[in-house]
Order: sequence, then structure tokens, then C-alpha cells
Amino acid sequence: ADAGDAERLTELLEPLHAADIADLLEQVGGSERREIVRLWGREIDGEVLTELDESIREEVIAALPREVLAEAVRELDSDDVVDLIEDLEEPQQEAILKVLDEPDRAAVEQSLTYPEYSAGRLMQREVVTAPEHWTVGETIDFLRRDDELPDQFYHVILVDPGHHPTGYVTLGKLLASKRDMGLREITEDSFRTISAWQEEGDVAYAFNQYHLISAPVVDDHDRLVGVITIDDAMSVLDEEHEEDILRLAGVGDESSISDTVVETARQRLPWLAINLCTALLAASIINLFQASIGHLVALAVLMPIVASMGGNAGTQTLTVAVRALATKNLTDSNIWRVIRREVLVGLINGGTFALCLGIVAWIWFGTPALGLVIGAAMIINLFIAALAGIVVPIALERLGADPALASGTFVTTMTDVFGFFSFLGLATAVLL
Amino acid sequence: ADAGDAERLTELLEPLHAADIADLLEQVGGSERREIVRLWGREIDGEVLTELDESIREEVIAALPREVLAEAVRELDSDDVVDLIEDLEEPQQEAILKVLDEPDRAAVEQSLTYPEYSAGRLMQREVVTAPEHWTVGETIDFLRRDDELPDQFYHVILVDPGHHPTGYVTLGKLLASKRDMGLREITEDSFRTISAWQEEGDVAYAFNQYHLISAPVVDDHDRLVGVITIDDAMSVLDEEHEEDILRLAGVGDESSISDTVVETARQRLPWLAINLCTALLAASIINLFQASIGHLVALAVLMPIVASMGGNAGTQTLTVAVRALATKNLTDSNIWRVIRREVLVGLINGGTFALCLGIVAWIWFGTPALGLVIGAAMIINLFIAALAGIVVPIALERLGADPALASGTFVTTMTDVFGFFSFLGLATAVLL
Repeated sequence: ADAGDAERLTELLEPLHAADIADLLEQVGGSERREIVRLWGREIDGEVLTELDESIREEVIAALPREVLAEAVRELDSDDVVDLIEDLEEPQQEAILKVLDEPDRAAVEQSLTYPEYSAGRLMQREVVTAPEHWTVGETIDFLRRDDELPDQFYHVILVDPGHHPTGYVTLGKLLASKRDMGLREITEDSFRTISAWQEEGDVAYAFNQYHLISAPVVDDHDRLVGVITIDDAMSVLDEEHEEDILRLAGVGDESSISDTVVETARQRLPWLAINLCTALLAASIINLFQASIGHLVALAVLMPIVASMGGNAGTQTLTVAVRALATKNLTDSNIWRVIRREVLVGLINGGTFALCLGIVAWIWFGTPALGLVIGAAMIINLFIAALAGIVVPIALERLGADPALASGTFVTTMTDVFGFFSFLGLATAVLL
Repeated sequence: ADAGDAERLTELLEPLHAADIADLLEQVGGSERREIVRLWGREIDGEVLTELDESIREEVIAALPREVLAEAVRELDSDDVVDLIEDLEEPQQEAILKVLDEPDRAAVEQSLTYPEYSAGRLMQREVVTAPEHWTVGETIDFLRRDDELPDQFYHVILVDPGHHPTGYVTLGKLLASKRDMGLREITEDSFRTISAWQEEGDVAYAFNQYHLISAPVVDDHDRLVGVITIDDAMSVLDEEHEEDILRLAGVGDESSISDTVVETARQRLPWLAINLCTALLAASIINLFQASIGHLVALAVLMPIVASMGGNAGTQTLTVAVRALATKNLTDSNIWRVIRREVLVGLINGGTFALCLGIVAWIWFGTPALGLVIGAAMIINLFIAALAGIVVPIALERLGADPALASGTFVTTMTDVFGFFSFLGLATAVLL
């Protein structure tokens, strides 16, 4: 029966792209996944492994026979091998490195000397270079002789005798130019190098901002050590966004659709625990006004509205701020104007909703003064929300923290505390 | 003085990349921007215009002398012209179309017949094709003769006599192969065509999922009408993420750092208004229990904690669900397992925090029964949060709505209403 199942599996999976097979392995349950790997694992290739989410990649790799793994890894570019092994345990890493040919192993080990999430980890070592003084004809002849060209490359990188990149030529230009044209005559303006130490998020930003297709990576001495291509930059951009969006929501940024119940519960717990503490802080503010609420229960009915509006307005502002920081659109040149704008928007919307809610509260409870008090509290809280929403992310960024990670908690704590305090405090002073 | 200022501006801006100039124009204030355009506008090029945010592009275009605009637009690829004019008013559009050469104008007008945000709008019309039966040598000779090649291209697309694309060859393979090799022998496995009617978000997904560098675009009859390159797909991916993140936060997705105070206030208002309505709904639940709160003010102190924890847990779940839907990781094959997981996680974390908060409430107010009631309410509300957090986005998606846009409001309304109702209702039944 196993043989029949294996055959049917192969029929099903054979026509699929590696990325789709990886998605499928992520989407099925743990026991089905183990069954698929057991039956079909011998035919798995390196591409499927690199496409797999980290959370289950280790599990799949551990389940593969050593010779299958060796075969799968040998066909990969160095950047994919690095991506594959950087999160593995030492013995598994060793096992994979051992099956690589000597130059490939050296390339991978060199990449691993750069920090995680750096350009050095992202780059592939397979580069196509030409001396600066070559002509188009010499370059084409060289390319036609070389039978170890990378699978995908888009530029020939010009290097000087010290192996420093000095420009690049697109393959399109190379094909369109006369054979006796010098390479130096047809280099691209878009040329820029990337330091191997640069953070991968900044690399993705540069690709997107400057429409780069590939960029040479250099070491501390400006020597060419590799190349990053746009498809890898696009993946990084996608991951960075995923991280931001999950962090803003207080979800562990390593979360994946294939995580188990226990893993998921554990990822979500820390942020809920922090939220419990801040909610208790807000409750302790309400506690100060027990006597007032005892006298006028309408206060308890209305107070969550002020806090909720503050929380929402604060989240709007902080999300815009976090995005603007991530896209480098919030800079020294416009920081004060943006702060001023957010505060004014807070006051305008505070005024608008103060009016609406004030009238509702007046009609609902028949007390004009209650309408005035809740209106004033609304203006105060939307002002606080705007100020905190813009200043907190900027401050976190300046302190070297990720504004997406903690801004939300800070801001909603402030809007809760100030919301309850301003409403209940004003009510106590004016109404009782 | 103007002449001197203009010169200094040119010195400053000349060395900058078009994308950085555009960022600068977005970051300075409105009056400074008008001044820069007045002094330096004659030297603006098409690239800067395409990089500008839509919100200020129209303003800049309107301020440019007609001949400057004509010059700027003539050097652009057809996809950039489309991007530039699709949001302009009819007369401005006409003015730009008029300055284009006849074939370029036809290409742009053809693109404009496809719907906004479709592949047809995103593609460039400049394609490099070769008949299927050509050899590498014939193709290279053809490329060298053609002096109207696009600025950037990465593949030669093979077409049959009916102009249907049947495969493509990378320029790297073309350069590395012998002259007498047939093109058909060296086509790429990654080849896939895109319909001109496809949604641009799906196009970006396909590029990222399948590591495409360029993809031919076909019309209803599978005839080649253009090509999309990865740099455009990367921009779309970036915009789609921006849209998701802003929609999740209830901010108008067209918001930009250069918006004025009034524009910003107006964008933020609708979501705050909706939030006011849902907060009033939650308040009306509390209103039902006025008598209970009057008897035991501790209820007013503790009730926001239950609602707040529900809101946070719901946001965690819905964010994961929205992302999984956007990345096509939540499919029919795993939907039930994911729903089951989320609900179990809700119950586990509900239980954990029921215990914590129950003990806190007991010690704080000295009433064990109050601890039991708030614990039970916590479990109920985190269960509701999990269920709503996963089911609401899926339901919105199935109904054809964008889950990022409205899920948050639905889910937090449910957690507020159920949070207050379960806690105050249980307290009324058990304690009073």
C-alpha cells in the first residue's frame, strides 16, 4: 500500500512548484506531514527545503535520510545553503557542510561569519565579474567559455585589479552593443555597492527605493565578496512587513500557520500578560473614584467610551508613525511638522467627537454638565493619544528599539489611564 | 536672488537619485515644495514624477510648464506613463498623451483600457521577442541590430506565429550558449504568463512565490501584450502591505506623510465615528447593569480589564488570520485545523489569565466569589475573542470584502459587548 501511496503522492506533487509544495507541507497537520515526508521524502529537492518555513524545516530535515539531504543541498546556490543551515543545531549544520564540495563549503562558511540578518548572509557568492578594461567581445567570449555560471545573473560586475567593484553592465546592454565597445562605456548609473555588514532590512529598502535588480556586496576593504539579487530582497521586504504587522498586533513575529496549539498559546501569552498589567493599572485609576461612581453610576457607563476612542485614535497615529519610520519618510526634516499635524488632528477630531458624545450623554442621562465633562475628557484624551501616538514610536526608534514592537502597549496604556483619569477626575470636581 | 537659489538647489538635487528627490519633495512643507518646483522645476525629469506620491504628484504636474512636462514624459517607459496619468483629471491626461509619439500613445491608451490595479496597467509594452525557431546566434544578431531595446530587460520571450508566448530565455543563458543552439533548448522552467486582467496584488504574490524576474502578460486570446518586471511587482507588494497595515489600524489607506492637517483629520474621522457607535453599544450593555454597579462599585473597577484582554486577544488572532489570508496560507485544506487551534489557544490563555486575575480580584476586594466571576468571564471572553478573531476575517474574505478593512471593528465590538455582558451578568446572578 505504501508503494501505491508513494506513487500517487509523486503524481500529485511532481507538477507543483517547490514553493507550492512547501506551502502544502506547512498547511497539512503534523502527522500528515510526517507521512508525506516518509513516503515522498526521497524525491524532495533543495528548493523545497529553502521554501519551507523555519518552524517545520528542522523537523523535515531531521526526517530525511542523509544521502537525500546531501543530494538536495549540493544543487543549491550558496545563499540558499546559508539560509537553510543558519538556524539548525550544530551537529545538523556540520552534517550538511560535510557533503558540500570544498569551494562551496568555504563560501558558506565565509557567509556564516557575518551576523544574522546581514547582507553577508543574504548574498550569493557566485558572481560574474570582468576586468574593467575588457571589451564587450572579450566578455561574451569569456561567458561562453565559462561553464560554471550562476543559474540567474543580470549584471557583469566590473572589478579593478584589487577586486574592488567599480561598475556593472546589464546583460541587455552587453548583447545590444558592438563587440569592440569597452565595458566602461556602457556601465549603469544605478550602480551602488552594499556592505556585507548592512542590515538586511536596509538592503531591501535600497532595492525598493532605487529599483535595483542586483547589487555587489563588499567587505570592509571594499572588495567584492558576493551579490544580492532582487528576488531575495523582495523576500526580505515581505518578511519585514510580516514582522511589523505581527509585532504591532502583539503576536510573536516567528509565528506561523503550522505552529501547534501549545506553541501558539506560548507566543501570545507575554503580550496578554503585559496587557493584564496595564489594564490593572487603568483599573487602579478607576478605583480612586469609587465614591464618585457610587454616587453617579452613569460615570461607569460612559467611561469606557472615552478610553476606547483614545485607544483607537492613538493606534491610528502610531501606525502611521511606525510605517513612516520604516519607510524612512519621517526624518529630521519633517519631524516637527508631522508632530504638529498629529496633535492638531487630535484636537480637531477630539473637538468633533466631544460635541457628538457630549450631546448623546446629555440626552441619555438628562444632565447637561455630564455632557460638558465627557466632551472635555474626550478632547484631552484625543490630544494625549495623538501626542503619545507620534512621540512614543519616534522615541523608541531613537533609543534603538523597534517602534513596532512596544509602541502599542505604551500608547494604549496612556490613553486608558488618561482617559479614565480625566473623565472621572473632571466629573468628581464638577458634578459631585 | 532667485537665480542664485536656483543654482544652489540644482547643486543640491543634481547628485540625488530620483526616488530621493521625490521623498524630499514629499517631506518638505507645501510652501517650500511650491518654491522648489518654481525654481528647479525646469530640470525635473520623468523619473522624479513617477516616484512622487500620488497625493502631491498632481500638484507638481499642474505647476510645471507644458514643455517641461512633455520632455519629462517622453523618456519614460509606457508603464510609467500609465502610472503617471491614470489618476489625473481628463484635461491633464489629454495634455500628456498629446506630447507622446504615436506608438507610445497607442501603447499607453491600450494599457488604460484595462481596469485600475490590473496587470494590464502595471505592464510595460516594450517587450523583446523572438520566433520560437530561432537560434542563439540569430537572436544575438537581432538584438545587436535593434536600437530600440527597452532600458531594462531580462528575458527574450519566444512567440509563435500567432504572437502567443511559449517560453522565455534568460539573457545569461543566451550569452553562455553556443551560437547554433536553438532557443527552444534553453528556455526556463519558471515560465508562466499573466493575464492582463489579473489583480496586481495577485501578480505581486506570484512574483514573490515563484521567484519570477519578469513575466509576459497576455490578453484574452493569450496573445502577448506586454511584460511585467520584478521591480514593479516589488513596489506593488510594498503598497499592498502598506494598505493592509493602515487598514488594520483604521487609517485611510491613501494616507501620506505629506497630507495636510485637514486631509488627515478627514481620513481618520470615519473609523473613529464607527468606533464611537460601537463604544456606545458597549456602554448600553453596561447601562443594563446600573443597579448591580450601584450595589458593588468594584464591578466598575474590574469590568474594563475583561474587555481589554478580549480586545487584545481578538486582535492577535485576527491579525494572524488576515496575514494568512493575504499570503494564501489559510486555505480549505487547513481552515478547520486553524479555527480549532485558535479556539483552543483562546481557552488555554483564557484559563491562564482567569486564574491570575481571579486571584488578584479576590485579594484586592476580599471576595472569593468576585474572583470566580471575573475568572469565568475571562474564559468566556477569550473564547469569543478567538472565535471572532478567526471567523470574522474568513467570512469577510468569502463575502468578497477585504478582511483587513473591517475585521478589527467587528471583533473588538464583540469582545467589548461580550466582555461587559458576561462579567456583569455573571456578577449580577452570583453576587447580588
